[in-house]
Amino acid sequence: MKTFREESCGLLTDLYEITMAYGYWKANIADRLASFQLFFRKKPFHGEYAIAAGLGTLIEYLARFRFEPSDLTYLESLKDQQGNAIFEKGFLDYLEKFSFVCDVDAIPEGTLVFPHEPLLRVTGPILQAQLLESLALNVINFQTLIATKASRVCFAAGSDPVVEFGLRRAQGVDGAMSASRASFIGGCQATSNVLAGKEFDIPVKGTHAHSWIMAFDQEKEAFEVYAKALPDQCVFLIDTYNSIEGTKCAIEVAKNMRKRGKEILGVRLDSGDLAALSIRIRKMLDEEGFPHAKIMASNELDEFLIRDLKHQGAQIDIWGVGTNLVTGKEQPALDGVYKLSALCDREGKWNYKIKISDQILKVTNPGILQVRRFFDQNGWISDMIYDTHLGCEEAVCIDMQDPTSERIIKSHMAYEDLLVPILRKGSLVYKTPTLAEIQQRTHDQLENLPLPCRRFLNPQPYYVGMEKKLYQLKKSLIQKVKSPS
Amino acid sequence: MKTFREESCGLLTDLYEITMAYGYWKANIADRLASFQLFFRKKPFHGEYAIAAGLGTLIEYLARFRFEPSDLTYLESLKDQQGNAIFEKGFLDYLEKFSFVCDVDAIPEGTLVFPHEPLLRVTGPILQAQLLESLALNVINFQTLIATKASRVCFAAGSDPVVEFGLRRAQGVDGAMSASRASFIGGCQATSNVLAGKEFDIPVKGTHAHSWIMAFDQEKEAFEVYAKALPDQCVFLIDTYNSIEGTKCAIEVAKNMRKRGKEILGVRLDSGDLAALSIRIRKMLDEEGFPHAKIMASNELDEFLIRDLKHQGAQIDIWGVGTNLVTGKEQPALDGVYKLSALCDREGKWNYKIKISDQILKVTNPGILQVRRFFDQNGWISDMIYDTHLGCEEAVCIDMQDPTSERIIKSHMAYEDLLVPILRKGSLVYKTPTLAEIQQRTHDQLENLPLPCRRFLNPQPYYVGMEKKLYQLKKSLIQKVKSPS
Repeated sequence: MKTFREESCGLLTDLYEITMAYGYWKANIADRLASFQLFFRKKPFHGEYAIAAGLGTLIEYLARFRFEPSDLTYLESLKDQQGNAIFEKGFLDYLEKFSFVCDVDAIPEGTLVFPHEPLLRVTGPILQAQLLESLALNVINFQTLIATKASRVCFAAGSDPVVEFGLRRAQGVDGAMSASRASFIGGCQATSNVLAGKEFDIPVKGTHAHSWIMAFDQEKEAFEVYAKALPDQCVFLIDTYNSIEGTKCAIEVAKNMRKRGKEILGVRLDSGDLAALSIRIRKMLDEEGFPHAKIMASNELDEFLIRDLKHQGAQIDIWGVGTNLVTGKEQPALDGVYKLSALCDREGKWNYKIKISDQILKVTNPGILQVRRFFDQNGWISDMIYDTHLGCEEAVCIDMQDPTSERIIKSHMAYEDLLVPILRKGSLVYKTPTLAEIQQRTHDQLENLPLPCRRFLNPQPYYVGMEKKLYQLKKSLIQKVKSPS
Repeated sequence: MKTFREESCGLLTDLYEITMAYGYWKANIADRLASFQLFFRKKPFHGEYAIAAGLGTLIEYLARFRFEPSDLTYLESLKDQQGNAIFEKGFLDYLEKFSFVCDVDAIPEGTLVFPHEPLLRVTGPILQAQLLESLALNVINFQTLIATKASRVCFAAGSDPVVEFGLRRAQGVDGAMSASRASFIGGCQATSNVLAGKEFDIPVKGTHAHSWIMAFDQEKEAFEVYAKALPDQCVFLIDTYNSIEGTKCAIEVAKNMRKRGKEILGVRLDSGDLAALSIRIRKMLDEEGFPHAKIMASNELDEFLIRDLKHQGAQIDIWGVGTNLVTGKEQPALDGVYKLSALCDREGKWNYKIKISDQILKVTNPGILQVRRFFDQNGWISDMIYDTHLGCEEAVCIDMQDPTSERIIKSHMAYEDLLVPILRKGSLVYKTPTLAEIQQRTHDQLENLPLPCRRFLNPQPYYVGMEKKLYQLKKSLIQKVKSPS
């Protein structure tokens, strides 16, 4: 992706990451090894799952995660309330030499993920691992949200193609670009956004708008001129004045095209009752000899409206989905967080860390974490979060919602560990798949999820447990924090 | 702003803009003069107004609105279903020489605007004016939405400063950057986003996160180390383990600081009952001799929660607002559209254009439009949309919601025409104000809006009428479309 391609992105962070970095540096603990994990708590859209996305974009940013002279000049210019520089010169010299040396592990894009599972794990000098927080959250929160939304919209559309149309209503240019990327990961077949097509190799689609029709005195003339200019691209937008009259014009022009050996691809509806109109238009097209012409529809669509329209017998073949897809409409942000979970002491021994809260589900999980997904020939059984040092020989899971409930995983069960190495000491050790491969992974993963877990409302819960030794460690850390000796 | 700074943005558009451009070129009407207007229909957030924003960013994009060799190579690679190139070589040569020559008029950023008022008017060769649609909508829809949201949040906070904290949950990197820009326009005093601070000269704020506390064995030690590293930056986050115990630690450390001649700036609360806790913490700080220490709060804030907390006597001095501000939460997109409103015929005579709909408010306004705002010494009286050719000597307004109601504006009434020249024949003729000047304009504008129009729910409507001759022309165009001769 083009944004910031040539430029440093060290400042693409919240100021408190830099003041903390300064504090670690001043306190001489900048190089203490720490492990942070990125996870979300709340299942998006009242569904059961999310689709991991954004890692490929984050990897590109990581290659430019440094501070350039103009960045340092800016930091030097920052003053406190007394008018004194916030940062000492020595710290800015330190940042100038900054080179990212952390280990990064992550769950590959296109993988189904669940609350509390670490999507990303960053282990390295605390100053560095801390600095990455805001950028990692920005990229992964948003793309994961939109890939998830797209998978829902495509699920509603069944085998019909869904085209993402969101550029004009997206949240800024990158809101559009990364939404196009994530929508394709989630299952969309194409985008209207030409730059996203160029940058990400996503198929692009689009024919004409109402303004094309309005640029001519008669609707029929507008179709005729278009058909002569782009004879193999004819999807006529028929609702500028009246959808039925528009369809009649489109059919007339299509008949003229046929005399020249050309076929219309279809018509597009962008207003009115899409169910009733599409049924009527389908009939008109069929009766006039155009049974292969597709009907495309757009206009404030989302998974619920698509499901309802199909339920009402709408004869729509292709769905154009914009605003509600690329903004995540009813939930425009994933609540992902990035938390310290372990820190080496001066002797190099790992201490596990926890942030407590009155709500048990808001207490973070300590450790250097991994996720193991168990499955058999019928699909997935359950996930287990475990600590890589404590291991998981026993494979006893504690249900995080109900700690009185244990689940024992049979020792011969097949499994996959979800986090894979991305960076080692700052160097890329991962080959980012193509976007088409990621889309295929999403598709394959969804096939393995029990169908009741895909329901839009009140889906069947998918079991995610915590390995028993880790759970006991967590409990003891909570008790230690609540009643310090 | 840094995004795409050096690069062309001709492809930052929907494919149908380019296929239409191709059609205009093939039909030999690419140079026919056309006028497009950008406006929104639905008042955001159930409020009464919006704050125009995004123009400064759009002007920067316009400077790079061209096609580079790699863009043309990409367009050349696009194939139709038969595997033939969509675009002829001649068209790509045409795009290579493309240079934007339109006239652009716009309502300056920081101006209050209302439904159906043209925020942007683009007049020039139809091919060029059409191509700009998607990019103009993307930039102006989003920034206008967020500036509006910010003004509501700041209104709830009264005279307390609001700091924008949205980077980690924003919709992509530019979702964050342009939200920081728009939030400042709407009234926020600072951002946590360091790059936005650097690029837009917005004050930046931030101290430390929970992970700073967790990086030390004891909370008090964490505060002490921070106070030594950043003695003039101490806003201690007190809720990592328990907010009251955290406040006690903060006070102990603040007393030690005072012995060294330093003062804490305040404490920050990020969870729990912000009303009850802030009242209790205020009392503790006052009793211990820190009446000047501020209490900052964050955690899922928006205008409604801030209003409620203040209503409940919360002792909060500074509000940190993130996700719900930068995503527009309950309405993550403004419904702005970009519509053809006039087109020159072959003889150079303007023909006015209309797009009709079953819903009268969805019918577009024809003409080359301007907005006149009438006011007296007490503030604004009403706005009137008029056509620059038909003029508005009479100043009779038709209420667009109720065409039977006319309002006559007294001829001596003071007024301001809102759209000002931005580009003439593609050259910039406008000096973009600084962001601080734009923020001041927002502030001044809001002072002129009758207070009942600022209510969050069921605000008093502000009168926006259509000039009578324009209204009659619109009616006759509708009748012509509905019953063609």
